[in-house]
Amino acid sequence: MRYGLFPGGKRIRPILTLAAGELFGGSRKELLPFACAVEMIHAYSLIHDDLPALDDDDLRRGIPTAHKVFGEGMALLAGDGLLTEAFRLISGPATRSLGAELVLDLSHELGRAAGVEGLVGGQAFDLEAESKNADVAMVEYMHARKTGALILAAVKIGARAGGAKPLELKRITRYGNFVGLAFQIADDILDVVGEDGPEESGRKEAKKATYPSVVGMEKSRRRLSDLTRQALISLTPFGSEAAHLRAIAGYVAERALCTEANLQRQGIGWKNDALT
Amino acid sequence: MRYGLFPGGKRIRPILTLAAGELFGGSRKELLPFACAVEMIHAYSLIHDDLPALDDDDLRRGIPTAHKVFGEGMALLAGDGLLTEAFRLISGPATRSLGAELVLDLSHELGRAAGVEGLVGGQAFDLEAESKNADVAMVEYMHARKTGALILAAVKIGARAGGAKPLELKRITRYGNFVGLAFQIADDILDVVGEDGPEESGRKEAKKATYPSVVGMEKSRRRLSDLTRQALISLTPFGSEAAHLRAIAGYVAERALCTEANLQRQGIGWKNDALT
Repeated sequence: MRYGLFPGGKRIRPILTLAAGELFGGSRKELLPFACAVEMIHAYSLIHDDLPALDDDDLRRGIPTAHKVFGEGMALLAGDGLLTEAFRLISGPATRSLGAELVLDLSHELGRAAGVEGLVGGQAFDLEAESKNADVAMVEYMHARKTGALILAAVKIGARAGGAKPLELKRITRYGNFVGLAFQIADDILDVVGEDGPEESGRKEAKKATYPSVVGMEKSRRRLSDLTRQALISLTPFGSEAAHLRAIAGYVAERALCTEANLQRQGIGWKNDALT
Repeated sequence: MRYGLFPGGKRIRPILTLAAGELFGGSRKELLPFACAVEMIHAYSLIHDDLPALDDDDLRRGIPTAHKVFGEGMALLAGDGLLTEAFRLISGPATRSLGAELVLDLSHELGRAAGVEGLVGGQAFDLEAESKNADVAMVEYMHARKTGALILAAVKIGARAGGAKPLELKRITRYGNFVGLAFQIADDILDVVGEDGPEESGRKEAKKATYPSVVGMEKSRRRLSDLTRQALISLTPFGSEAAHLRAIAGYVAERALCTEANLQRQGIGWKNDALT
């Protein structure tokens, strides 16, 4: 469990929870258990995803995957443990000062994002899609569940725990939706061209349906750029207070778009007009 | 997920939740989501346990295990889905009439029983114990976590949801502890002699440390008989209202002790003096 969580990756999801919560005045102490739970669920999903039964990856972030180090049985259990402990953590004493009603609502939201309507459903769809010819609708459906749902939940849970009012929650939900989809497209692009590309990730075969594989790289970049612009626009009502959320949206796009091959590319305009 | 849940096994755990809850006046409608969540967690643990990464079983209850029918990837995800949806179910609208504080406490209790201090921890210990010479202390430690914790939680969660007062909860906890350990010893005995024996379970090798393998069959039967008697005694204060809980304890022991070879065996006296 520790190997899957530390040293972790970019911590995008828990940072989103903290940034969204602090935007509405939430305290870091009250937000942290939710941020941790979101990251624990992300970490479990990576451990299980890497297993031979699914992606069969030997490396992640350049180091051996959990089952390569501890064996398949222990990796399976580490994932189960992280998933279970995430729900235990947020139902325990650490969150109770927020009020039990709200905590229960947030636990339900996390469950929906992680379960059959979210992460697990997306993975199952992905597994079945491998044998089919994927189209854009299938890839977007899958992305919305596999990646988008937990990123959106990270944002919404943070905002609700921080005290967002209904209209504010509606606005931040738009941001979460845009960033969630942008994130997966960025990851798909990086799988082809970038830092986490096929060699480094150790993926045994590029059999997955991805955004670039169904619409092409150029269209993928434009879609990512467009989603990032929309995410930034959705933050306009929050003014300078939303600087952290703005920076995260920018970072997500930048990783994939501002590669050497792509710098100064025409038509990718989110950076000039919105990320300020 | 459906394949793992229906048609299920004996439903001991959810029946315990309902019986313990009804003993204290709980309504079946309010108890049922918790009973379902407990059974979903049990079902997930069996699906994962049967995977090649752990026990590598081809059959369960005489029919092919989930990964034999749907493949390893889908079985892994079905387990993840059941575990996640269990926590989602109890944090949703179905339980809210009990009051959010109590529901959150029960969710925490379920998480502890299912996580590293319970089910997952017990499985991990079991996996590591395979390479060692197990003794009684190791087997009891493992059983308490792998099986006992969830059975105890099923009882306690039912009792608390039903409105048990502190002293009542203390008494019913004793019952849950005895039944939990009895249940695993009974299962271990049946693995050797009974209906779910090695041939039917399809287990590829009997490599696990079990109660009979470390203390012998005769001592295991006596311990089961003794635990059952203690479970029944712990129900004395509840009088005839506890008939269902009494019957479950009797059933657990009967399956393992009243096999043809063992009927009328001397020294196994729980049936005459307590199960009435």
